[in-house]
Amino acid sequence: MIQLKQSLGAKTWSVPSPVWVVGTNDKEGKPNFMTAAWGGICCSRPPCIYVSLREATYSYGNIVERQAYTVSIPGEEYWRETDYMGIASGRDTDKMKDTDLTAIQSELVDAPYVDEFPLILECKVIETVKIGLHTQFIGEILDVKADEDVITGGAPDTQKIRPLLFGSGDRGYHTVGVKLADAFTQRKPPTI
Amino acid sequence: MIQLKQSLGAKTWSVPSPVWVVGTNDKEGKPNFMTAAWGGICCSRPPCIYVSLREATYSYGNIVERQAYTVSIPGEEYWRETDYMGIASGRDTDKMKDTDLTAIQSELVDAPYVDEFPLILECKVIETVKIGLHTQFIGEILDVKADEDVITGGAPDTQKIRPLLFGSGDRGYHTVGVKLADAFTQRKPPTI
Repeated sequence: MIQLKQSLGAKTWSVPSPVWVVGTNDKEGKPNFMTAAWGGICCSRPPCIYVSLREATYSYGNIVERQAYTVSIPGEEYWRETDYMGIASGRDTDKMKDTDLTAIQSELVDAPYVDEFPLILECKVIETVKIGLHTQFIGEILDVKADEDVITGGAPDTQKIRPLLFGSGDRGYHTVGVKLADAFTQRKPPTI
Repeated sequence: MIQLKQSLGAKTWSVPSPVWVVGTNDKEGKPNFMTAAWGGICCSRPPCIYVSLREATYSYGNIVERQAYTVSIPGEEYWRETDYMGIASGRDTDKMKDTDLTAIQSELVDAPYVDEFPLILECKVIETVKIGLHTQFIGEILDVKADEDVITGGAPDTQKIRPLLFGSGDRGYHTVGVKLADAFTQRKPPTI
């Protein structure tokens, strides 16, 4: 059945976006955390990730100063804390106290991570790309740390982590469903 | 319960990654499509997205030449076709013929999209960032197009699109689960 596609305009409406908590230290060395949905892996060698932040955020200044950040990936049970950390500003409040979460300083980079979250990436900034309202901080991933109970065969397991997904069109948090298939298996055209 | 985190090394193991099909035209104007998991939104104003590709891919040369691409987002029922389009090369075969999918030329940018996929973003390249093995093509989103039956209130609905997720640690395709909550609702600390 052929469907007519509707034009919806110039919007940031891809699906899905991740829901990540960016950890930084401020000038006094006080940890701050901010939820971001504009992020992703951008290189395999060296392994690199980025987060895009507005210059107005407290975290932006911290990253410019420290040239480092972490990405702490919450399980779905932390959606309330995570949502709050995307609204409040570290200029006004200590979000770790507010949410009863624990900041741990990375031993590899000058940035803290959230101890309660199952998957952590520690990153040093290797490139800063000013795009428009958002600036992209490309970070080389120096280490990935995970809770033992989310690891399968030495690697993080999406079904055990149960990360949140953000739908920028529907402005909702969604859960992960089931594992459908192994990737890199369809070496022949599926219609043959 | 405090858990000891395990160090897993410098890997691209964030979760989740998207599963997107990048559409390009080659020198002769022939459409090519390639599945990519390194992609994301990177700016709200102007609305920008990126895909990171290896220089060895056929799509890389096409984007350098045309300075444009589309992102076609498959629903989960197309996981086989999508996986195949990440393995085969447009240098060797016509992936649209192989998969029985339909290439439609965009009227806004010099690139084609997949008609059968529910959500399309049309992009012109505004910045190219060579990182390492991968090069990031940042594209300004000129329009988003969606099938009528995946739109709710004028915007794409994650629960109707049912996009695929890629777990780079577990190398699997995962589905979207349920909508858990509306974002931007937790204006007070959740522990209070």
